[in-house]
Order: sequence, then C-alpha cells, then structure tokens
Amino acid sequence: MSARAARRRQAAGERASASPWKPARERARERESKREAVLLGAARVFRERGVHNTTLDDIAAFLNVTKPTLYYYLTNKEQIIFECFRLGIGRITAVLAELGALEGTGREKLAVLARRYAQVMASDFGWCMVRVEDHDLSPAVARRLKSMKSEIDQGIRGLIREGIADGSIRDCDPKMAAFALAGALNGIGHWYRAGEPLTAAEIATRFIELFERGLEPG
Amino acid sequence: MSARAARRRQAAGERASASPWKPARERARERESKREAVLLGAARVFRERGVHNTTLDDIAAFLNVTKPTLYYYLTNKEQIIFECFRLGIGRITAVLAELGALEGTGREKLAVLARRYAQVMASDFGWCMVRVEDHDLSPAVARRLKSMKSEIDQGIRGLIREGIADGSIRDCDPKMAAFALAGALNGIGHWYRAGEPLTAAEIATRFIELFERGLEPG
Repeated sequence: MSARAARRRQAAGERASASPWKPARERARERESKREAVLLGAARVFRERGVHNTTLDDIAAFLNVTKPTLYYYLTNKEQIIFECFRLGIGRITAVLAELGALEGTGREKLAVLARRYAQVMASDFGWCMVRVEDHDLSPAVARRLKSMKSEIDQGIRGLIREGIADGSIRDCDPKMAAFALAGALNGIGHWYRAGEPLTAAEIATRFIELFERGLEPG
Repeated sequence: MSARAARRRQAAGERASASPWKPARERARERESKREAVLLGAARVFRERGVHNTTLDDIAAFLNVTKPTLYYYLTNKEQIIFECFRLGIGRITAVLAELGALEGTGREKLAVLARRYAQVMASDFGWCMVRVEDHDLSPAVARRLKSMKSEIDQGIRGLIREGIADGSIRDCDPKMAAFALAGALNGIGHWYRAGEPLTAAEIATRFIELFERGLEPG
C-alpha cells in the first residue's frame, strides 16, 4: 500500500468513527434487534396481565420507553400480537422447510419438528401464541394467522404420511395424530412457567418418547 | 275406596291442575334446566364472539329473554364463565369419582376418563373451558378454577401411576404424560366445530389408540 493510500484510508476511518451516525446496515440490524426486544417485552406483559388487559402504555412502561418510541417499531396492539405469533411460528416453519431437504424417516423428522415446537412453546412467545384468538384480530389478520397455523398442521400431517409410507410410522389417521401432537405441544404454552424444573429439551424428549412408544409396556 | 274419598281425591286433582303454580319440586327442576340452557346459550355466544366481546345483552338476545330474566339465573358474566367451566369439568370429575370404585387396570381407567374428557371438550362448553384465563376472573374465582383443574390433573397422574404399579402402563414420567394427554384433549376444545366429520367418540378412540400404542409400528 502506498503512503498516500494509507493516509486516505486512515482519514476515512477517522471520519467514520467521528460521525454520530452509524452505517446504514448496522442501523437496520439494531432496529431489527430492538423490534424483537419490543415483541419479547410485549409477550411477557401479555402473559403477566392477559392480552386484553394489556395496553401499549403497559408495554412501553415495561420496556422503559415512551409510547412514540414503541410506535417507531410497531403500529398498534394488533400488530404486536400478530408479530409475536409470527416470530414464534416462523421458528417452526423454518424447521419444516429444512426438513424437506434432509435424509431420514418421517418419524425422525417428526421428532425434530416436535423438539423445535416444544422449544418455541416454552419460550416467552408460547403463551401468547396459544392464547391469541381470531376474535382479538381483524378478519384480514385472523386469516393470515389461520393460514400460518394451517401450514404447520399440514406440515405435521405430511411428515406423518411420509412416515406411514416409509414404514417408520404405524398406519393411523394423520389428521387426528397431528391434532393430538399439536395439542400436547400447544399445552406447553399454557402450563410452562419460568422455574419449571424440566428444560424445553427434556419435555420434548418425554413427549416424543410418549408419542413414539405409547403408554403400553413394550 | 269410598265414594266420598274418590270425590275428595278428584277435587284435589282438579285444584292442582287448575292452579297456575307448579309444585315446588317441579319448579326447582325447571329452574335448574333453564339455568343450564342459559349456560349453554352463553357458551355458544362466547365461542361465536369471544368471551371478551360478549356482553350479557348478547346472551339475553341469543336466548330471547330480557336481561332481568338472565339475572334471575346468574348474577354476572364472571359467574357465567365460571359456571360454564364448572359444568364441563364436573362431568370429568364425576367419572374420576366413579373410577375409584371400579375394577380394571390403570390404563383401562385412563381410557374411560380420556373418552369422557374428549366428549366434554367436543361439547358446547369445551371452547369456553379451554379459553378462560385467570386474567378474566377475580382472584377468588381464578383460585377455584385452578383447584378444579388441578383435581383433574392429579386424577390423571394418579391413574397413570396406578397403571405403572399394576404393569398396564410403561414406566414413564406421570406428570409429563398427564400434561401431554390433557393437552391433546384440550386441543379438541380449540379445533372441534359443529360439522366435524368425526364424532367425539371416534376422536377419543383414535387419541386413546395413539396414546396407548404410539406411532411406532407394533
């Protein structure tokens, strides 16, 4: 590097560190992480007070910010509810997408999905996800939510069908088996609390064993 | 019977049928059945509109009665929510009580309980039962509700322990198995709708088979 190029680079570095504005990409990253922090805070307040009893003021107070700061990230309570749901369910659909390309039996893939599902349900978003009702949402948002739920449901049924086809799952009613499994996993969102002695992974292990082997002595 | 006694009896019968007031016992029975009809109507309106969006006016309109008539049977919305829950859960605890005196293995008794539980969840009260939150209720009522839920939970765990002891159920974590089963059954309250092709009994049969035998090919 020439002495002149080195001086130019140093000057640019000094300008950048002297500027009170961060580079655009970093700002976008920060904004996204703050938005998630808002959703996480909201999810905790929802659980504490119930979705209906929670106001945007409650969420702002919990996060130590003003309501206008909140509005910078999310426009209203419905959007917050929806985004909490979407963030959680997105972690489940992400696994479904990965599983499509993976080797393994239907039953093995179903176990991978159940494990992630249990983790999401034990997260701060779990309670909110199982508590959101269509009645709380505008018809348009309720439809989007329903379609995301349906994607998970169809994904589970698909893995069960795959397992039946490859011989790893006993012949059964895929719809009812999917409903039973999802019901058990959603239950975690209802009862799981901080301080629960089992981790999400330990709960998942017990649930998967139960659904794979059943209660009958083997 | 003397002619005089027969006349007296006939006169009494005419008086009774001529009276616009029914005997006390019959009135009590009617009141109870009307109270249940109010709760059933309320449960249907709750499901239709959501518990939070339902007013006593909505319930009165659905039942074609005035609000004072509603107040004759139930004092406020919280009581209606609670009584819907109690009526449903009472049908499950009733089976638990009967099972204590019955012959059979723990697994057989668990299946009987699961069958009744599924029926309650598919009834009009199911949706309301799985949707009621502590946040919707006063602390005193929330405590009573929690204690009823706990009775069912402990009952299920007890039957699982009984099954493990008598060898009809594989060694497992009774708490997690009870949570998984109750979660799956509560799920019915969330997804079951009029027009669902399977009856509650058919759903119960599939769920019980799944929980007994598991997904692994046998």
